[in-house]
Amino acid sequence: MHQTPDPYRDIPLYPLVNPRSIAFFGASNRFSAMGTNQLNSVLSLGFKGKIYPVHPSEATVLGLPAYKSVADLPETPDLAVLVLPTAIVVQTLEECGRKGIRHAIVVSGGFKEMGPEGAVLEQELVAVARRYGIRFLGPNCLGVVNPHHLFNVTFAVFEGRPGFIGLASQSGSLLTQMFRYLEQFRIGFSAGLSVGNEATVDIVDCMEYLAACPHTKVIGLYIESIRRGRAFIEAARRIVPHKPIVAFYAGGSEAGRNAALSHTGSLAGPDRLYDGVFRQSGIVRADTLTELFDFCWVLGRCVPPQSRRMVVLTHSGGPGAAAADACSRNGLSLPRLNGTTREKLRPLVPSTGSLNNPVDLTFSKDPLEYFSAIPKVILEDPDTDGMLVYCFAPPKNMQRIMESQGLSLEDIDKLTEAVAEEIAKRSSGLAATLSKPVIGFTYQSSEMPIIRKLLENGLPVLPSPERGARAMAALARYRELAGKIGNQAG
Amino acid sequence: MHQTPDPYRDIPLYPLVNPRSIAFFGASNRFSAMGTNQLNSVLSLGFKGKIYPVHPSEATVLGLPAYKSVADLPETPDLAVLVLPTAIVVQTLEECGRKGIRHAIVVSGGFKEMGPEGAVLEQELVAVARRYGIRFLGPNCLGVVNPHHLFNVTFAVFEGRPGFIGLASQSGSLLTQMFRYLEQFRIGFSAGLSVGNEATVDIVDCMEYLAACPHTKVIGLYIESIRRGRAFIEAARRIVPHKPIVAFYAGGSEAGRNAALSHTGSLAGPDRLYDGVFRQSGIVRADTLTELFDFCWVLGRCVPPQSRRMVVLTHSGGPGAAAADACSRNGLSLPRLNGTTREKLRPLVPSTGSLNNPVDLTFSKDPLEYFSAIPKVILEDPDTDGMLVYCFAPPKNMQRIMESQGLSLEDIDKLTEAVAEEIAKRSSGLAATLSKPVIGFTYQSSEMPIIRKLLENGLPVLPSPERGARAMAALARYRELAGKIGNQAG
Repeated sequence: MHQTPDPYRDIPLYPLVNPRSIAFFGASNRFSAMGTNQLNSVLSLGFKGKIYPVHPSEATVLGLPAYKSVADLPETPDLAVLVLPTAIVVQTLEECGRKGIRHAIVVSGGFKEMGPEGAVLEQELVAVARRYGIRFLGPNCLGVVNPHHLFNVTFAVFEGRPGFIGLASQSGSLLTQMFRYLEQFRIGFSAGLSVGNEATVDIVDCMEYLAACPHTKVIGLYIESIRRGRAFIEAARRIVPHKPIVAFYAGGSEAGRNAALSHTGSLAGPDRLYDGVFRQSGIVRADTLTELFDFCWVLGRCVPPQSRRMVVLTHSGGPGAAAADACSRNGLSLPRLNGTTREKLRPLVPSTGSLNNPVDLTFSKDPLEYFSAIPKVILEDPDTDGMLVYCFAPPKNMQRIMESQGLSLEDIDKLTEAVAEEIAKRSSGLAATLSKPVIGFTYQSSEMPIIRKLLENGLPVLPSPERGARAMAALARYRELAGKIGNQAG
Repeated sequence: MHQTPDPYRDIPLYPLVNPRSIAFFGASNRFSAMGTNQLNSVLSLGFKGKIYPVHPSEATVLGLPAYKSVADLPETPDLAVLVLPTAIVVQTLEECGRKGIRHAIVVSGGFKEMGPEGAVLEQELVAVARRYGIRFLGPNCLGVVNPHHLFNVTFAVFEGRPGFIGLASQSGSLLTQMFRYLEQFRIGFSAGLSVGNEATVDIVDCMEYLAACPHTKVIGLYIESIRRGRAFIEAARRIVPHKPIVAFYAGGSEAGRNAALSHTGSLAGPDRLYDGVFRQSGIVRADTLTELFDFCWVLGRCVPPQSRRMVVLTHSGGPGAAAADACSRNGLSLPRLNGTTREKLRPLVPSTGSLNNPVDLTFSKDPLEYFSAIPKVILEDPDTDGMLVYCFAPPKNMQRIMESQGLSLEDIDKLTEAVAEEIAKRSSGLAATLSKPVIGFTYQSSEMPIIRKLLENGLPVLPSPERGARAMAALARYRELAGKIGNQAG
């Protein structure tokens, strides 16, 4: 079916995430049904492949011709999606097998997560899959999203863009709830997989897929329990030298463990055990869900720093001091700038400012210099490994100044946009030519003109000094971990 | 001047934050000048008092009649604001003193923060102030904002609402940069004071003012260095039993300390020392600037819990588990619900759901029940001290369902708004009748209809499970600290 020599297309999970055709079970014309919602999601993102709804009585489903049985389909589709009552899932998968279908997503719950009887049913499902050589995601999962393939088979409308974060998640709803969250930062998923009960496809398989996926620059994992410990570590160690992996583990505390137990029926281990597994695997650990995506963001956008010597650039003392403090607490050092660099900076920094580290302009004389000439001097210093830059531009104040020049509101909007664009271009040009990481931080909304432009031009601007510093430390941590694994392998 | 028996109006700083009339030095008709910007801020918020610009040559300043000298003013104003070149500040303050002015804000920099010569100049300024009995804020400060008095004498346009957070800050720009930040959460400042070099008014004086201010429900402090340690502790211990205080300390690490040193010229002490000072003072310590405002938010909105036994309510396993984990890590316990409560919840929770803690609905059957009937049962349990509730409603999905019912886009907007309003009313009604804290958490933007309505109705909805849990722990911490001080005093 997939006979191209491309190793990516040969990955077992490829048809699951990039199907050319789907048999869809459980969608109807009843709009409140989960399956209908899920098929609607597929349609609304504009999936280019064939969709064959299977329904016992409807002639059409959401405008598509429907089939009474999978046996009736005119071809053997790449993938079956099952959003059916628990009782008929096993039998339906069997019919899919008979038709020759080899990949499925079983959204239906009611299996292992419901106790011993469900576990027996799940064993039956796995037996059917083995008999026909079917790999299926789930059961009890939320599906898959692959924006690059215009494929979203989750119940949630996709609101976002094709991006570079590959997520494998033991929480399904987390995946869908991040669509819009990532969009605010102008980033997105390359692919997202909700693994559910992991009956035949587990988090390790997903890691292997995402490692091969060319759209994925960084792999994120939401973990409540790792079932195949050795395979997990081995896979991660193969991947990490080429592609960073970030993991959040929810079962670290007793309450987290109990929550995981009732959520996916998995038994989580003690926090320290997982800490060791991640370290051994070369995986950057995130302490919170917010960090999971912060770290993926910067790892996908920035070159990791050679070492941990950072410069903080600010025009405001408080946020600058908070960033410096957070750098220190996260193992980043803020060395004094050398004499040459200080001399080069002197004409660019107001007399009230400081040439220490943080470099503090005290006020923003010229935003263009702030985002280009000054960072250039700082980053060209061989003793600087990266930079954190405070981003803040009060639009109302800029507007007030422009109004005083007699500009119309329309002109002001255009000018603001143009200035923001110019700033963002210069700063992103800089980040591209120098192979050192630059991370912005702000308290402003991502919808403010300059912040928005910076994000659109690829500068990660994190929503607080502390998150900026933690993200920079994660970049440094990745290089250290990858280096260690590389050395051990070599 | 202020002879009402109201103790608030008798607080020495009252005319500084609530002036009826101002002499303004340093504004002109040149729009790029700092002083012009600052006077513009006063005008644009709609200050109701009298403003007397003083300018050597202009007949009017920003449309207001200007005076050549302060001696020429028709009355003695409550307050002088000085945004002047360093060299003429001392002499101008002297002229203000001669006119009988007893309060001033000295925005001008160039004093102690610039080294030994500046320190000498600052001593001269203090000597003048002593001679005339003037209390002044600064020098090297950013001014004051009091939205309840429509008074904003900072360079930034005020974008926000009158609120309940009283901030005293050793970083000036932090104050202005939070205007819009707080507004996104539908909260705001009661008053904000940038203390600058603290020559005659320090952070302790500001605490005393904010303690008396009836609009202030919670006091926030941004601290780089405490100059009067004993007075600070004594004042805090008097205030805390009646009004919570939250502090962020930027000088805890070496880098933070260096940054503070070049920012305000203050010598910060070791982290542990400040930790002790805050504990002894009964002050809730925030580890980050984000937390400073998170903690102020919930302390101003919620009753602190009797104890640390919490329930997490979710319809999504991942964020629920993350919240449970974060509760555990922050010393909150998630006990099993008792039999009675579980029986009452059973009919409200889908069969796929969980009656453990987190209570996990797995999907949101009825958002009205989720925000009223279910929380009611949980909070009426005498063994529950408070609740964290996951707030997430995908608007696009709701829209899709309504579209399928044949509703027009306009009807959908109206209906979404109405449902959101109803949910928010029920949940806020609940929070009002039960004296237990409820904190929401979400990954959605505060502009999503339901989140916005919840915020507008006074439910704090924090932007992640971890921030929600940390904020709840801060509430618990406040009760414990206040209780300890109360006992020691009694």
